[in-house]
Amino acid sequence: MPTPVSGRGPDRRTAILDAAAVEFDRQGFGAASIAGIAKAAGVSQGAIHFHFRTKQAIALGVIDEQNARTFAAVTFADPSPLGGLVVASRTIAGLLLEDPVVRAGIRLSLENRVFSGATSAFYDQWIASVVDVFRLAVAAGEVDSTVSAEALGATVVPWFTGVQLVSDVRAARADLLPAVGTMWRVLTHACVAPAHRARLLAVVDRAFACPPA
Amino acid sequence: MPTPVSGRGPDRRTAILDAAAVEFDRQGFGAASIAGIAKAAGVSQGAIHFHFRTKQAIALGVIDEQNARTFAAVTFADPSPLGGLVVASRTIAGLLLEDPVVRAGIRLSLENRVFSGATSAFYDQWIASVVDVFRLAVAAGEVDSTVSAEALGATVVPWFTGVQLVSDVRAARADLLPAVGTMWRVLTHACVAPAHRARLLAVVDRAFACPPA
Repeated sequence: MPTPVSGRGPDRRTAILDAAAVEFDRQGFGAASIAGIAKAAGVSQGAIHFHFRTKQAIALGVIDEQNARTFAAVTFADPSPLGGLVVASRTIAGLLLEDPVVRAGIRLSLENRVFSGATSAFYDQWIASVVDVFRLAVAAGEVDSTVSAEALGATVVPWFTGVQLVSDVRAARADLLPAVGTMWRVLTHACVAPAHRARLLAVVDRAFACPPA
Repeated sequence: MPTPVSGRGPDRRTAILDAAAVEFDRQGFGAASIAGIAKAAGVSQGAIHFHFRTKQAIALGVIDEQNARTFAAVTFADPSPLGGLVVASRTIAGLLLEDPVVRAGIRLSLENRVFSGATSAFYDQWIASVVDVFRLAVAAGEVDSTVSAEALGATVVPWFTGVQLVSDVRAARADLLPAVGTMWRVLTHACVAPAHRARLLAVVDRAFACPPA
């Protein structure tokens, strides 16, 4: 049973972000109001203002929290670096399907240029981290390509971004898992060393639980 | 010398869309106003209302026009279907860099769920057309892959969408051309028949005028 949220501590801040995320995800940034967020969170507007000075600050808090939750999925200690990244992307896809903070965070970050400063830094961070994974994969002999680890990492992040976005626009993300699975299959054929290909394709099939397209 | 725009004909409608596109691209949909668009277009607000009942109708007009202008770049008669698609994507990237209607159209369609009905239909149309190109490429022996033409087409469209979006957020599209070039290089390694690979990579290098990543 959840503990009732009270006081000014981190629990209440999280409860406000969770409620705000539902509002932002449902209505978009422009239509959401602090009054509506307070009502949904079951707190007073004063309690919101204690933690966040403006609606924009709440949105930045949601974006921040989305980034923290998705980033936590990435591991750098997998014996199969690319396999670990495939599994991480499955975790993130699951968050996009189920976690309002992650859904709202990505919506906000793509929807309003007001947030593009924060968003840009997050993309830089994501690309740097995925490049690191590809470097590890090259070192492990898993990736063997004339395209550099830098270029692979720099295209996989926008690829995933576009896949989830188009899946959202076209199908409210109903086809997200097979669409991300297709991305990994194409990428595996593009850059994975032949000796590792069947194993990686099996990781993709298992993670996205759908037959090859 | 451009003809002065007057009357209620298609020229004035286009002039309104061009001016509106600049406003939407600069300020976003929410902040743009019909008064501002009228001023930028050099027409009265009455003239705008003759062509468009609401600001939303203007935005839908911009999205429509963006789709028509980008779609015109795609050819289905190229002896190298995939080569033709690479060149088309270069044309579209050029429009994203230079044509306010195309820039604003894609911004509007990604930014506001209010437009997702129209946007969803456009993505369907784009994916169907790119799938057709991949089917032609398979028939021509240019593409040889265990991943189907349907899956390849369905991932290339979001891939390009994400690449241009992340390039916009991170670099105001300064790296758009090399980023799209990387996309095609990775895709070529993933699915182009070995006999056609060097030729296709040369098409990519020429189209995006940058060294392999």
